[in-house]
Amino acid sequence: MPELTFNADGLMPAIAQDADTREVLMLAWMDAEALRRTLATGRATYWSRSRHEYWVKGETSGHHQSVVKVELDCDGDTILLTVNQTGAACHTGNRTCFFTELNDGGAA
Amino acid sequence: MPELTFNADGLMPAIAQDADTREVLMLAWMDAEALRRTLATGRATYWSRSRHEYWVKGETSGHHQSVVKVELDCDGDTILLTVNQTGAACHTGNRTCFFTELNDGGAA
Repeated sequence: MPELTFNADGLMPAIAQDADTREVLMLAWMDAEALRRTLATGRATYWSRSRHEYWVKGETSGHHQSVVKVELDCDGDTILLTVNQTGAACHTGNRTCFFTELNDGGAA
Repeated sequence: MPELTFNADGLMPAIAQDADTREVLMLAWMDAEALRRTLATGRATYWSRSRHEYWVKGETSGHHQSVVKVELDCDGDTILLTVNQTGAACHTGNRTCFFTELNDGGAA
C-alpha cells in the first residue's frame, strides 16, 4: 500500500462521491483502522470525532455506502471513496451534505 | 453567511470538483480569509500549510480554478468548490490528485 499520512490526531479526511450521480456526498474522517475496515468490508467506515468511535455509515439510518473504489491523493493525506449510496447521505435527509450555497447573492 | 466552523488551526478542508467532468480534483485548506478571497475574486485561493501563505491555485502553474459555486456542508466545517479547471489540478501533471487506487487487488 502507498504511504499514508495521517494528521496529528491520526486521522485523514475521506470524501464520499456518488458512483452514479457523481455528487460529492460528504466528508468524514478515517484513521488507519477505519480505512482497513472499509477496504475489508466494502462498507464505508469512519471515525466519529464527536462520539470517539468507529461509525459504519448507515448502521443506524440504513443509509449505507457500498464502496466501489478507494483512492488516495498524490501526497497521501486524503481519501476519495466512490460509493453506491443507499438513501440520503446527510443526516438532515438531504441527498448530499453540501446544500448551502455561499456565493449566491455575493456573500463576499 | 451561515456559521463556519474552522479547526484548531483556523482552517477547514475545501474540496474542488470539476464542473464539467464532475471529477473530484483535490482537497486543500482554507482559512476565513482564503474563503473570502475565493468568493471575492472567483479564483480558488487556499492556505498552504507547508508554505504558510495564501496560494491562488494556478498562480505559478497557470492551472487556475475558476469558481462556479461554493457550498458549505451541513455542519459548516467543509467547503465544496465547483470549478472550471485549467489544465491539470495536480502538481504531478495528473488531471486530478486522486489517481492511486487502494482497493485494487485486495490491499486490505
